[in-house]
Amino acid sequence: MSAKYSIGLDFGTLSARAVLSNTENGSTLPYESVFYYPHAIINEIDGTPLPQNYALQHPKDYIDALKFLIPDILANNFVDKNLIIGIGIDFTDCTVLPVDKDLTPLCLTEKYKSSPHAYTKLWKHHTNEKYAKAVYDAILTSDSSVLSVTGGEMTSEFLIPKLYEIFCEDRELYEDTYKFMLGGDFIASLLIGKKEIHSKAYVAKQHYNDTSYPSNDIFAAIDPDFADVYQNKTVTELSSVEQRIGYLCAEWAEILGLPQSVAVAAPILDAHSAISAAGIAPNRVVLALGTSAVVETLTQNNSHVDGILASSYESVANGYYTVEAGLAAMGDLFDWFIKSCVPDNYIKKATDAGLNIHQYLRSLAEPQEVGEHGLLALDWFNGSRSIVLDNDLSGMIIGLRLSTKPEDIYRALIESTAFGIRRVIECFVSQGIKINSISATGGITLKDPMLMQILASVLNMPIECLASKQATALGSSIYGALAGGAYENITDASQAMKSTVAITYYPICEDNEKYERIYAHYLRISEYFRRDNNIMKFLSENK
Amino acid sequence: MSAKYSIGLDFGTLSARAVLSNTENGSTLPYESVFYYPHAIINEIDGTPLPQNYALQHPKDYIDALKFLIPDILANNFVDKNLIIGIGIDFTDCTVLPVDKDLTPLCLTEKYKSSPHAYTKLWKHHTNEKYAKAVYDAILTSDSSVLSVTGGEMTSEFLIPKLYEIFCEDRELYEDTYKFMLGGDFIASLLIGKKEIHSKAYVAKQHYNDTSYPSNDIFAAIDPDFADVYQNKTVTELSSVEQRIGYLCAEWAEILGLPQSVAVAAPILDAHSAISAAGIAPNRVVLALGTSAVVETLTQNNSHVDGILASSYESVANGYYTVEAGLAAMGDLFDWFIKSCVPDNYIKKATDAGLNIHQYLRSLAEPQEVGEHGLLALDWFNGSRSIVLDNDLSGMIIGLRLSTKPEDIYRALIESTAFGIRRVIECFVSQGIKINSISATGGITLKDPMLMQILASVLNMPIECLASKQATALGSSIYGALAGGAYENITDASQAMKSTVAITYYPICEDNEKYERIYAHYLRISEYFRRDNNIMKFLSENK
Repeated sequence: MSAKYSIGLDFGTLSARAVLSNTENGSTLPYESVFYYPHAIINEIDGTPLPQNYALQHPKDYIDALKFLIPDILANNFVDKNLIIGIGIDFTDCTVLPVDKDLTPLCLTEKYKSSPHAYTKLWKHHTNEKYAKAVYDAILTSDSSVLSVTGGEMTSEFLIPKLYEIFCEDRELYEDTYKFMLGGDFIASLLIGKKEIHSKAYVAKQHYNDTSYPSNDIFAAIDPDFADVYQNKTVTELSSVEQRIGYLCAEWAEILGLPQSVAVAAPILDAHSAISAAGIAPNRVVLALGTSAVVETLTQNNSHVDGILASSYESVANGYYTVEAGLAAMGDLFDWFIKSCVPDNYIKKATDAGLNIHQYLRSLAEPQEVGEHGLLALDWFNGSRSIVLDNDLSGMIIGLRLSTKPEDIYRALIESTAFGIRRVIECFVSQGIKINSISATGGITLKDPMLMQILASVLNMPIECLASKQATALGSSIYGALAGGAYENITDASQAMKSTVAITYYPICEDNEKYERIYAHYLRISEYFRRDNNIMKFLSENK
Repeated sequence: MSAKYSIGLDFGTLSARAVLSNTENGSTLPYESVFYYPHAIINEIDGTPLPQNYALQHPKDYIDALKFLIPDILANNFVDKNLIIGIGIDFTDCTVLPVDKDLTPLCLTEKYKSSPHAYTKLWKHHTNEKYAKAVYDAILTSDSSVLSVTGGEMTSEFLIPKLYEIFCEDRELYEDTYKFMLGGDFIASLLIGKKEIHSKAYVAKQHYNDTSYPSNDIFAAIDPDFADVYQNKTVTELSSVEQRIGYLCAEWAEILGLPQSVAVAAPILDAHSAISAAGIAPNRVVLALGTSAVVETLTQNNSHVDGILASSYESVANGYYTVEAGLAAMGDLFDWFIKSCVPDNYIKKATDAGLNIHQYLRSLAEPQEVGEHGLLALDWFNGSRSIVLDNDLSGMIIGLRLSTKPEDIYRALIESTAFGIRRVIECFVSQGIKINSISATGGITLKDPMLMQILASVLNMPIECLASKQATALGSSIYGALAGGAYENITDASQAMKSTVAITYYPICEDNEKYERIYAHYLRISEYFRRDNNIMKFLSENK
């Protein structure tokens, strides 16, 4: 009997990717396909520049990605289309677009092609803070428990502030919108023949509270016409992530060159997809380390955790909450340092040694004893995401001396992210979530052994690094295999198809003992700037 | 009648300089002479490396400097030797060497040429801290008022810890030493024919308390044989700085090509010399801005000021205390930043624009609004000198973001030194010292208009920058003119011969208002790290 395959589609911020994985063991075929969005992030429409905090996308890019990726990956892996049993999709969270009754994005219509609000609002579109504030105040006034799924916080990234912005700034468009759809829901709905669906994956940041949406009264307090935003303007019937939402429609089967027998899974979140790639199990933390750091875990008991970004009921597996937190900058922070703070003689020495600058800095920083550089940094260079959501918090380096070298700062910045991650995990543990293993994925995990060793010593736990370089796409292909009928449930599917482990980093006892002392200072000083001294807020607002 | 001239000799850390100034108006002749010490700072003796905190010098370098500078400056300015009426000398403080009865440095004798302790200990020779601690503890136990002339502090830079180190580590040398002489006293004594003198300029850091040295009992508590360190091992008869200590002896008149009628002034401190160059007057702060920053003023009433480095009675002018404080790093801090933190594309852009890197960074930082960079730095990159003496304190930068650019940090570091200087001046004022004008000297003052403008706006007072580029040597030449009989007292001499003002920076009102708010945060956060959170000490000791 021939192997069967599942397609995993990963829609990221600037590109989409596809893998083909064997539904028996999850091994992915060698050719992986990438499609960069031609419009990337739109900064002008019809020659008019958009405001600075806008982050719009063009939905045509997602459609073009679909049309390119699937035929490309089939052709280049020489796989018979009849061996494909399912498609899984992951997509960024809080990425939303208005569509008409035909599920056509409004920005593709003649009437709205010049209206900024008709385009996709990417997760990082930062709506004017006043809309987020209005929503936040309304919730606090009537029912603050609504915020328990988002760590008590409200941010302009979330869905309702984005819709309220459109409600206020382009009422006609708001009225003309049939539904505001999440990006992943939109793609999945297209594939099954324009039957609109709404995956449970996306509901936390819409403040869906385990079983229900916030009541209309809350939004009526902002504006009576906004009261029924959920019922009238979003798809309220939820699809389980373990559910096959349908099969490829005739139109898309033809476009993609696939049979109509291919099942389509309910879409999931890109950040959560790594959990299925690591193997769905309780008591495990999954670290997705990239430009930022996602720290997530599954729990059956704790729906409401303070200090997190979101707690999503059944967004990964039935019966589980996915608790998600993280750092707003990780790889971005190291890149900032390389770009802004490394002197030219270091670049020259790296080149002479045949190393890239990260490797060269590592060759100088890695032999150091813990604490030798005498520095401590706070990792809030892109604001804080957890355990407090506060964009006014900022980075700090202390202990600087005339003898401080670039490799010292580099290592201190890496350590600051390790401390930040430890703090998030301690936040989980302090609220009754047991953690007994850690898996990690993302480019850094396989490229930066110094960082991973520091992280293991700081966390004082072994860290298993996934071998898959496309863990996110692999994760969504596991949902595709489930939809295609290869497994009974997502836990079985992911245990069979999860990535192998490339390398495990174990804590070094002596280093951990030193880090314990430094971490105590990290905690004390971060509490001080969070609570007792408003200097970071002052500096941020004073700019 | 021909003009008369005075020679000003300035013995710095790595070089000595000479100027020839007109005794009527202080104008200096165009040719200025420089001599770099061939041995600079010695880091090995007979192939044996010295410990890291050692900073030894070779006294032959000072003698060779004398032999070079004076004939050189006479010849190159075409000045008749008979027009020279006096020589003034300034020298670094706390720079001490052991000599025999013939005033020959012991390191020049066969017996001691291989003994490290026989060489000059430069001011920044950091004796093992245990010796400073033993002296400090002994003083605290018996009479803490002894420390009132050094802001309540004791540091390994001061004289007694250095002598106690020799006492403990090379007792034979200690016993064989006729006197331990300060560098300036040594030079002046040589010139007048090996008659040992001890200028009042140097006594503060020996804890001479206005009229007397600490009692022998204090040192007896450390070791009975160390009790009479002052009486037996130093010159105790003090020369007023307004005193002519003698005339050139025949030997040195011949070596230097000068008549024996040339008067020699009591030596002064290099840091204090700028005060006479600025014009001796009460209520004026003089800033000497170089690798570090000296902040000093004269007062007739306040002998004991908390938070300062030293209060020296009559070290500049009879009847005045010289109150001295400052920052342990200023130019050094900016140089560290340039060397360690500026990326290669900045170097390239500066080169392309035909600017040095300071000029290029300034071109980017100068147009910024106050606070625009969103950063605040603490200036303790070389430890803190005032208003607390603490080498465990270290530098800090807060407000860092992924958008932070090198010019932002550069400007924030400059501002941190301005805040540090303001803090010192406020410390003076809070203890009853009136300040109504500020003079500044040092290379930075004429080269860095952005820094000077920021400083004026932070201090909220005009700053007069001296035109003289050799203000220190000019200052000592004024003492030479006094010794040569051109004036009745140093105040008259300095008022006549002081430097002109090249440029005055006035505070910008709007900038000052913004800086007031930022400075309030600077104060709060520096107090926090000084008193409430020991993290800097932890990081320093943990290294």
